Amino acid sequence: MKALLKEIRQNPLLWLLVFMPVVFFAAGLKPEAHTLLFVLSVLAIVPLATLLSHATESVAAKTGDAAGGLLNATLGNLTELVIALAALRAGQYMLVKASIAVAIVTNTLFMLGASFLLGWLKHYIQEYKRVSARMQAGMLFLATIALLIPSTMIEVDSAAGAKSSQTLSLGLALLLIVAYALGMLFSLVTHREAYASAAHGEDGEAPWPIGLALGALAGVTVLVALVSEIFVESVQKAAEDFGMTPAFVGFIVVALVGGAAEMASAFSGARKDRLDLSVGIALGSASQIALFVAPVLVLLSYVIGPAPMDLQFWPGAVVMMLIATMTAMFVTVGSRSAWFVGVLVLMVYLIFAMTLYLLPPQLK
Amino acid sequence: MKALLKEIRQNPLLWLLVFMPVVFFAAGLKPEAHTLLFVLSVLAIVPLATLLSHATESVAAKTGDAAGGLLNATLGNLTELVIALAALRAGQYMLVKASIAVAIVTNTLFMLGASFLLGWLKHYIQEYKRVSARMQAGMLFLATIALLIPSTMIEVDSAAGAKSSQTLSLGLALLLIVAYALGMLFSLVTHREAYASAAHGEDGEAPWPIGLALGALAGVTVLVALVSEIFVESVQKAAEDFGMTPAFVGFIVVALVGGAAEMASAFSGARKDRLDLSVGIALGSASQIALFVAPVLVLLSYVIGPAPMDLQFWPGAVVMMLIATMTAMFVTVGSRSAWFVGVLVLMVYLIFAMTLYLLPPQLK
Amino acid sequence: MKALLKEIRQNPLLWLLVFMPVVFFAAGLKPEAHTLLFVLSVLAIVPLATLLSHATESVAAKTGDAAGGLLNATLGNLTELVIALAALRAGQYMLVKASIAVAIVTNTLFMLGASFLLGWLKHYIQEYKRVSARMQAGMLFLATIALLIPSTMIEVDSAAGAKSSQTLSLGLALLLIVAYALGMLFSLVTHREAYASAAHGEDGEAPWPIGLALGALAGVTVLVALVSEIFVESVQKAAEDFGMTPAFVGFIVVALVGGAAEMASAFSGARKDRLDLSVGIALGSASQIALFVAPVLVLLSYVIGPAPMDLQFWPGAVVMMLIATMTAMFVTVGSRSAWFVGVLVLMVYLIFAMTLYLLPPQLK
Repeated sequence: MKALLKEIRQNPLLWLLVFMPVVFFAAGLKPEAHTLLFVLSVLAIVPLATLLSHATESVAAKTGDAAGGLLNATLGNLTELVIALAALRAGQYMLVKASIAVAIVTNTLFMLGASFLLGWLKHYIQEYKRVSARMQAGMLFLATIALLIPSTMIEVDSAAGAKSSQTLSLGLALLLIVAYALGMLFSLVTHREAYASAAHGEDGEAPWPIGLALGALAGVTVLVALVSEIFVESVQKAAEDFGMTPAFVGFIVVALVGGAAEMASAFSGARKDRLDLSVGIALGSASQIALFVAPVLVLLSYVIGPAPMDLQFWPGAVVMMLIATMTAMFVTVGSRSAWFVGVLVLMVYLIFAMTLYLLPPQLK
Repeated sequence: MKALLKEIRQNPLLWLLVFMPVVFFAAGLKPEAHTLLFVLSVLAIVPLATLLSHATESVAAKTGDAAGGLLNATLGNLTELVIALAALRAGQYMLVKASIAVAIVTNTLFMLGASFLLGWLKHYIQEYKRVSARMQAGMLFLATIALLIPSTMIEVDSAAGAKSSQTLSLGLALLLIVAYALGMLFSLVTHREAYASAAHGEDGEAPWPIGLALGALAGVTVLVALVSEIFVESVQKAAEDFGMTPAFVGFIVVALVGGAAEMASAFSGARKDRLDLSVGIALGSASQIALFVAPVLVLLSYVIGPAPMDLQFWPGAVVMMLIATMTAMFVTVGSRSAWFVGVLVLMVYLIFAMTLYLLPPQLK
Repeated sequence: MKALLKEIRQNPLLWLLVFMPVVFFAAGLKPEAHTLLFVLSVLAIVPLATLLSHATESVAAKTGDAAGGLLNATLGNLTELVIALAALRAGQYMLVKASIAVAIVTNTLFMLGASFLLGWLKHYIQEYKRVSARMQAGMLFLATIALLIPSTMIEVDSAAGAKSSQTLSLGLALLLIVAYALGMLFSLVTHREAYASAAHGEDGEAPWPIGLALGALAGVTVLVALVSEIFVESVQKAAEDFGMTPAFVGFIVVALVGGAAEMASAFSGARKDRLDLSVGIALGSASQIALFVAPVLVLLSYVIGPAPMDLQFWPGAVVMMLIATMTAMFVTVGSRSAWFVGVLVLMVYLIFAMTLYLLPPQLK
């Protein structure tokens, strides 16, 4: 508990934890104040995501390298998964899909681009091992194809089309999970030494004791789930109040909320000239969402959703994911980076942000 | 003749030759038993394709390196060509196009992916020369563009569109054949030493005497042509009987039938740590179909078909060929392979197989 | 003045200057002879473009490396810019867009491919520094995405769509200009030594004295502008007279007219085994048009055009620019070239030329 309190004192991000009780209080008192609830829930999720991330790493550090890597890879996007589950329960499949697409694009473009750019502030040219980066880019490419195919091939208007789409999405979800599992087998077991540097994790921060870590993992997950309920309920109306589209709010907010902790790690890695780590976190997180979180949500929609969810995205989302993947593939061909590479990647992100702001996709 | 008999005794695949007389007997006796005829004709073509492949190599081995390479490159996909000619004569242009698209995708993804995966069973990491692989990937890229352009640019509904499509397809066919010829000039004449290793061919098997080889080449081609007639007639109805789509049956069967001999060579190369050879066979065969077989079929459709054939494919086929090419380009950027690369490539193939099984394109 | 006359005597291309007075004379005498005026204006622009190019380089040589590079990069496509401005003033936005798309495709494919091919006539395998090539390819990729997004995402039929398209195009134009400025900062200031070889410019030709150079720069620009007026007025009708489509005439002519001087430099570099220079000119010119000329035209359309111009291209143009960019990215992965690479790149160009000839896009 002392470790937890010490962590909170040192990390200003965690001071936001004060919004935790505030959001529940406000939700009870004024359930119709959507914009307020939206802002409060965002402010409350950010520190929870940070705690969740640290708890996962602490458990991973204790359980040894292979199991720890497995745990880290599985729970690394727990916040995104929990938020998406709340949206799934509410039957808001478009929000689920938007958050998947956005998380992939943000991790690939914004996190990667900003890491390249930040790294330059201290280092003229940075070298990094590209083995891991290319493997992640390859996995992302596979996932993009799996999301591209049903969206381009299916005639949605027919009932038969909807049925086939459902079956195909289920098959693709299983296939992606198998690919993800094989990818972990490859990087954690058979070709482990090639990933030695990337698996190192962020040093510097002392891991928590195992008891605290496990307790925090369980407790914080529950808290994230509770706040997510409020977040999902309020986001739609809040976006309208802001005069923005749900898609754009999702684009900015899901990136901020779900990825805050990972971005902190990636950027700190880049500044320490450990670009391996930054690239690994950015692309690893993107491919995890594409190959693990998204298919798991499809499977869970059969259990907890009002109807099965398929993997058909709106065309703009497919184009964005495809371009993000191609950018990652292009950038990771070389193994050196200078600041302009970061600028190019960030510019692609800005094009998408600008487009979504001005041209809201019809999510309903 | 002794050499032929010895070969048949040693190679279990050739025992399937017994189905040769059976299929002709059955076709005469029960011409309406489509499913039976389909199965029998497939079983009969496999050993014929193997013989054809060995005959070509034997002639190539005798005629010296440059001419042999030329012969090998031209006749390497003779089985596919003969089957497609039977379909062309019958006016089944959709089957012709499907078999072209499928052969490209299967060679690029399945043969390449399985070679990478098989290679790993004996070798931890495999290195290969990427010069040849990248040239083949480049040729494949060119061919994909040539097939992509008419399919995306033409308004099919207008009569003028159909006319332009015809002229454009003819022009593109001639252009692809020129590119193919220049590619052979490059790899067999001007920059030959860069391809030394790939041109080696499969050693171990003794070539046949030239007389036998030439005789076998002529005789077996005729036999393949005869069996192909029965195959093309029966495949459509047989697919319906299986409750499958012609596209899916084509996907599996053309791959198996036409590519059996090449796959055997590619996989054996991979296991002997001669990944150069495997990659060369897989991508070389794909680019040969795209740059030589497909355009030749367009030209021949003016002579033997009921109407000129164009190069417009259904959109799904274009997407698949494009993705297959991009996968080949991505994979051949590096010059090392580990088993997970094979898994990724095979997964892309599985996505396509799954999609075609569930979402049959309208081929009629 | 002597330097100018000497240059004219030595360079046969400049003898075409005699068509300058002829075109003005003809325009005054027979304003309805469109085909004649078209041919004459093309013949007159070619030598002017060459003079403009030499004047720019002479000023650049005098003003020191960073400022000179800046000048060169900004004025390198002055001819294209002036021609496009004439079309912009006339409200012929489709011609403007066609000339942008065509200039990108021609520089990327024709100039690059021909350089690779020509280089081989004297050199078996050519090596080049790929740092600069990859940066240019990356900038081109960014620009293609910026042109792809509005063209794929916007429903043109609605009034709201047209308004959003306008705002988005303006935003993208500003973003591209910022990217272009940062790219110059990168290559001219912070990472300048990596570009040392490419910045060298064409030696051999003595620069003009600064007074002559500045005077020529101003005077020739005015002349190009005057001839462009006649060119833009006549091209549409002339194309009809030739029985060709404006798109095809644009494809051939804009390439010839605007790029003549650059092509001369690129090809001469390739023959001297300075492929760095050729690749730099080809891709640099393409990315300059995409990231500087196109956005500047969008901004200027608010000032001098009858209505704001957006960045929506017809789908075929987007496909062509995307494929050209992918080809450049694929080719610049390696840092060696042999003649077949040139053939492949040129073949892609030929496919586009053939398609545009047979399948005119509806530009009106």
